[in-house]
Order: sequence, then structure tokens, then C-alpha cells
Amino acid sequence: MKKIILFPLLLLASLVTVRAQQNIAVPQPTLLSPVIHPQQNSVSLVVKAPHARQVMVKGDWIGADGTAPMQRSENGTWHYTSPELSSDLYVYQFLIDGTPFTDPLNPYQLRDVSSLFSYFIIAGGAGDLYQVQDVPHGTVSKVWYDSPTLEKSRRLTVYTPAGYEEGSLHYPVLYLLHGMGGDEEAWPALGRATQILDNLIAAGKAQPMIVVMPNGNVAQQAAPGESAQGQASVTFFLPGTMDGTYEDAFKDILAFIEKRYRVKADKAHRAIAGLSMGGFHSLWIAANYPDTFGYVGLFSPAILPGRHSDAAATGVPAIYQEMEEKLKRQRDNGCSRYWIGIGKDDFLLKEVEEYRDKLQRLDFPFEYVETDKGHVWSNWRAYLSGFVPGLFH
Amino acid sequence: MKKIILFPLLLLASLVTVRAQQNIAVPQPTLLSPVIHPQQNSVSLVVKAPHARQVMVKGDWIGADGTAPMQRSENGTWHYTSPELSSDLYVYQFLIDGTPFTDPLNPYQLRDVSSLFSYFIIAGGAGDLYQVQDVPHGTVSKVWYDSPTLEKSRRLTVYTPAGYEEGSLHYPVLYLLHGMGGDEEAWPALGRATQILDNLIAAGKAQPMIVVMPNGNVAQQAAPGESAQGQASVTFFLPGTMDGTYEDAFKDILAFIEKRYRVKADKAHRAIAGLSMGGFHSLWIAANYPDTFGYVGLFSPAILPGRHSDAAATGVPAIYQEMEEKLKRQRDNGCSRYWIGIGKDDFLLKEVEEYRDKLQRLDFPFEYVETDKGHVWSNWRAYLSGFVPGLFH
Repeated sequence: MKKIILFPLLLLASLVTVRAQQNIAVPQPTLLSPVIHPQQNSVSLVVKAPHARQVMVKGDWIGADGTAPMQRSENGTWHYTSPELSSDLYVYQFLIDGTPFTDPLNPYQLRDVSSLFSYFIIAGGAGDLYQVQDVPHGTVSKVWYDSPTLEKSRRLTVYTPAGYEEGSLHYPVLYLLHGMGGDEEAWPALGRATQILDNLIAAGKAQPMIVVMPNGNVAQQAAPGESAQGQASVTFFLPGTMDGTYEDAFKDILAFIEKRYRVKADKAHRAIAGLSMGGFHSLWIAANYPDTFGYVGLFSPAILPGRHSDAAATGVPAIYQEMEEKLKRQRDNGCSRYWIGIGKDDFLLKEVEEYRDKLQRLDFPFEYVETDKGHVWSNWRAYLSGFVPGLFH
Repeated sequence: MKKIILFPLLLLASLVTVRAQQNIAVPQPTLLSPVIHPQQNSVSLVVKAPHARQVMVKGDWIGADGTAPMQRSENGTWHYTSPELSSDLYVYQFLIDGTPFTDPLNPYQLRDVSSLFSYFIIAGGAGDLYQVQDVPHGTVSKVWYDSPTLEKSRRLTVYTPAGYEEGSLHYPVLYLLHGMGGDEEAWPALGRATQILDNLIAAGKAQPMIVVMPNGNVAQQAAPGESAQGQASVTFFLPGTMDGTYEDAFKDILAFIEKRYRVKADKAHRAIAGLSMGGFHSLWIAANYPDTFGYVGLFSPAILPGRHSDAAATGVPAIYQEMEEKLKRQRDNGCSRYWIGIGKDDFLLKEVEEYRDKLQRLDFPFEYVETDKGHVWSNWRAYLSGFVPGLFH
């Protein structure tokens, strides 16, 4: 006896002004973008810009300068079809006479620092891991904590695995740190951390764990737009980001998480990992918190030779002094997994190779993975996917 | 002894290809948009489109058809400055030769159904309530629950007020429902529900409460992009949305929330409110769950005369039958606050006035607020801000 009742909007539409019909606009685009071609593993994009002289697509699957021309049709639309793409998440913009716009037909966007990108996923491989699947889902929360060290209240993202809230078990914790310009929204967005964890845990390939994604910019309370700083412009270089302050204040995050959540509060159940600047932070937090982290992941880490010291040194923050002493202590204490991933095209490759050599000289056990590509999210998603299954065994 | 260490990106930039520098692009725009003029309470917008023939701004502060022309400068940029605006959150797009783009210089966007809009906030009044302020913040979580009635797992947004996680108190609950085309992300995004609650609670103007923002589309598990349906196109009309299924399945949400959270599980501490279709849902859930909700808020509600019946009737879902009987029962049971808000320009005004008359005939106590404007988020944010302070006294 169920009967479909349609809200009589269409009948009323002619009575409604634009101003009065917010939230009930019914766009009926005749153009679709993006269109995935599952047989070809390619994508077609289209945008209408009838008077533009040049439209390019800027996409992270495109080599060389990252752009490719779009072709104009007589009706003023511009078209592009990609070659075959490997399974992954891809981001793009349209450069219309030089101005970067997101795709007006694609409601799916992600922010990378101060820029918004449209995105799509090519399924059939890694992309499946970055997609929401029909599996049990963890809870993703935006949580505020007090940082006595920084004398402010700050925001972080917490993933609790499916079953956490219903049960009484205690869980291991992965602390997952973003790169420069990022914030507590970077890993859950472009990093697809929550999808990766849901999918790996459901497949039995990772232990159920809590993942904590803090904000590594001590000058910020929260991501842009999420603090009383309001809609400040999104800044790449922030003060205090790599001067030891964050590593010192990280104890506030540890204390908060271990008080608020049901965690296994021992070294065998604590991991820390980060990308780029977050790799730098992870290296130094692990090195300065003796016997605290059993697992360390450095994804395209910034090593910054010359900015730290193997011995005690003036002008270098204490946190970044005595690297060799601290590494030897970590080695002697034992570290279940010290994992480094870097791309062949990464501008940080040389410093990471030197750091690898130092670890070898110190007989420090570690794993080292060199991949294609450079300093890109495609690698960081893959590194997370490779790092997580080895945790907490 | 702290020393600023700058990541030597700028030195390395010349070595880095575009492909290799994802997440480290440092845009240095010479143009800024939006620019708020605090003295004038106005905004200036700019976009570069050198070969466009017509650029309009489409904004929800603009009367008539919602658009205003932008003026071209010689360098190919287009400019617009608004008149004085009342304090609120405003959304806009640029119509460049007819295609709606978001502002490429503004990283702050909100999704409304299938469309993305750039936004800004004019402070000094209601806008302050919609802005994150320096007050204690609640936790905002994306949570999955099982719906035995719908035989699927589904996603909702839960706001727990500051102090919830640290304490052991039990809290009242507001169930807050979205409109057609919306989902569990509508109220936390355009609705600014979490900022409104944080700010009202901090000011002592609202009781600390849990706010549950479910997904009212029974065909969906979750918002677009957040379920295994993947990047499906965002659809406005979904099956089963107003045929009684959702109201029936709402019992699963109640059961889940009252099991998972520390709530005061009685009528005096349960409220339900919704906008447009969510007002329709709220009306019928309150009417069909006897003595369950002490507070009801109908924001620009869809009443849909002819789609329900005052008596038992064939062809009408049981949920929507016997409206008068159910209202009399609510009246006799007692309802602490039955609140209706509607805009003078709303296309649903006539039906809401008829419903108001029906309530009066039934001696059903209620509050009725008629505001300016129409079927718009500006009103729904204001209605929520007006409704919440009266709850749970």
C-alpha cells in the first residue's frame, strides 16, 4: 500500500523566484563531467567556456608540466579524454585562459592547502582502497583538546574503528601527521585515511586501530575556517612549524588521546607516521620520546640536513640535537618497524638517501621503499596502505 | 634559543617539476576574493576571465533573479562590490558566459545538494553565531548505525556538546532533519548547526544538548561520495523519501542514539525539527510517535495538503492518515513547544497558513514566526538559532 508522494516542486517552480528556491534548484545538466570509461580506465572531462581562447586541464596524472590542452567544440564546450590511467584517486582543475577553476559539473572536491581540486577515482586497484566500500565503517570525529604547552585549545581528527563504540576493548593508536600547509583535514581528505583503514581492517589486512590526525601547525588552533581566526587566507608558511615547538607540544596530544580513548598505552601499540614535514615531525617525536613508539613511518620525509645536529650544538633547538645519540637509543630500545618511503622523482630523495646511509652505519634496522613519482599524494596514500598492514603484530 | 627553521622549498623550487610538487605549490595571488569591508558591511569579489563577454555574480543576497553584473577591467579581471549587507553567511558563484563557477581565489565552499558555492560571512550580528568563536567546542562525528527496518547500515552526523566526553552527565537530544536533496551533511555545512550550538551554549542561551543530523533519504546509506555508491550523480528526487518509510524507520535512529549516547531518554528531553521536507518528516514523526517528543520545530515545512488525510483513507500511507486524531492526541499528551517558522516569500506559505489555522481550530498551542525572505538557508539558520534557546527548560 506504499505510494510514492512527490514533493510538488515542479508544479510550483514557475511561481518561485531564484532567491526563494535555494536548496530546491534542480540542475539538469546536459553535459556530464567527469565521465569514467571503465573498460578503458580513462576519464572524459568537459567544460563550457564559449569565449575562452585556451582551456587546459591541469591533472595529477599528466606528466611534464601537469597540463594538457582541451579541444573546443562548435557549441563552446571544451573536451578532454585521458589515456589509460592506473587505479588511483586523481585531482584536476580547468585552466581557462590561465585561471584555475574546479569542474562546475563535479560536486566532488578536495582541498589541498589553499587550492580546491575536483577529483575522480579509477577503480580496479589502489582506487578501490580509497573508495568507500560496503564494509563496516569507523567513526570519524573532529575533536578539540587542550594543549597546556601551547596554551590553546586545538582541533584534531580521530578515526575509531568499527566496533569501538559498542565494545570495551582497548586499541592500538596510529598518529598520522600531515605535510607543510596541511592540517587535521589533510589525511582524511586527500589522504583517504579513513577509507584505507575501513577497507584494510574489513579485509583482515590491518589490525583494528585508532588513527589520530592532529594539526601540526602550532600557530593554528584548527584548519582554516574552523577556528576563531575565521576565513583567514590559507597560509603555507606558518611560524613555529619546524622549530621543535610542535614536537615538544606533542606530549599534550598523547596525554589527551590516552585519557579520552580506550587505548593500549604502551610502545607495542603506538605508531607514528607522517608525510613530508609530518615525516620530519615523526622522526623527531619518535627520537625524543624514548621507548614510546614501536612503529615509525616516514613518508617522503623532510630530513633537512644542516638544520639539526649529530651532537649538542648551539643555535639548534634541543629537540633536533644529538640525532645519532637518539637514534642509537631507539635502536637499542628496539623499534618493531621503522619504515621509509620515497619517490624516485622526489626533490627530497638525496637527503632521504643520506639518512638511509646514516641508519645503515648505525646498524639501525629499517625498511626502505623507493617508488615511482615524486612528492605527491598518490605516493602518500600508497605508503599509508603499505605501512598500516605491518602494524601491531 | 628557539630558532625559526624554514623548509628550504623556495631554494629547491627551481628543481621541482609541477608533477613532483603536489602539496607544496605556493600560490601568491595578486588578486584577493572575497574581500570583506567591515566598515561598510559589504564584500568585493573579483575573477580573472580575460576573454569572457559576460560575467555575473549569482549570490543569495541579490534580489530579483539573484544575479548582478560584474564590471570588466582592462587587465581582464571582473569586479563586483555589494551594497551593505546584513550580518549573515552568504553564498555565491560566478556565471562566466553562463557557466556557474566557484570563486577560484576562495578556498571556502559549501555544497548545497549538487552545487558547490563559495561563501563568506558578514560579522556583527547573526553572522557571529555562524562563525567559529573562541569558545568551548563540541565534537562533530560521522557515525554509522544499523537500520533493521531499512536493512542497511547508514550514516549520520552527531554533535556532542563540549564536556560530554569528559563527563558522565546525561543530555537531552535534538533530532535535526534536512530538506529535499540534502543529507547528513546539510545542517553541519550550510546550516552552521555546530557553530550555532557551540555559540549559544557558550553564551548560556541554550542547554548543552546532543544534536543528531540523520540522512532522510531512505534510498541512500550516506551523503554522495560517502557510501559504496561512490561518486554517483547527486540526485534531487529520491524514491521513498515522502511515503512514510523514513518516518517508520526513524525508530531505528532513536534506538541507536539512546543506546550509544548518554541521553535523557524521555519526552521532556527529546526535540525534533527540520526544514522543508525535514519539517514534513518532523511533523509526522512527532505525530506518529505518541508522547515521544516534547519539542517540535517546523522550519518552512512542506505540509502537502491532499497527500495526507484527516481520517483513515485508502491510498494514503498509514503514517499520513488521521492527522487530526494524531494532533489531538499530541495536544492532550502535551507538547512543551510546537514552533513554526516560515518566510513571507516562501512558496509554501499558503499551506503553512492553512496548517496554522487547523492547529488553532484544534486548540493546539504553538508558536508561529513569519520572517522576511523565502525558502532559504538564511531563514533556516535563523530559525534554528531561535528555536534552540527554548528547548529543555
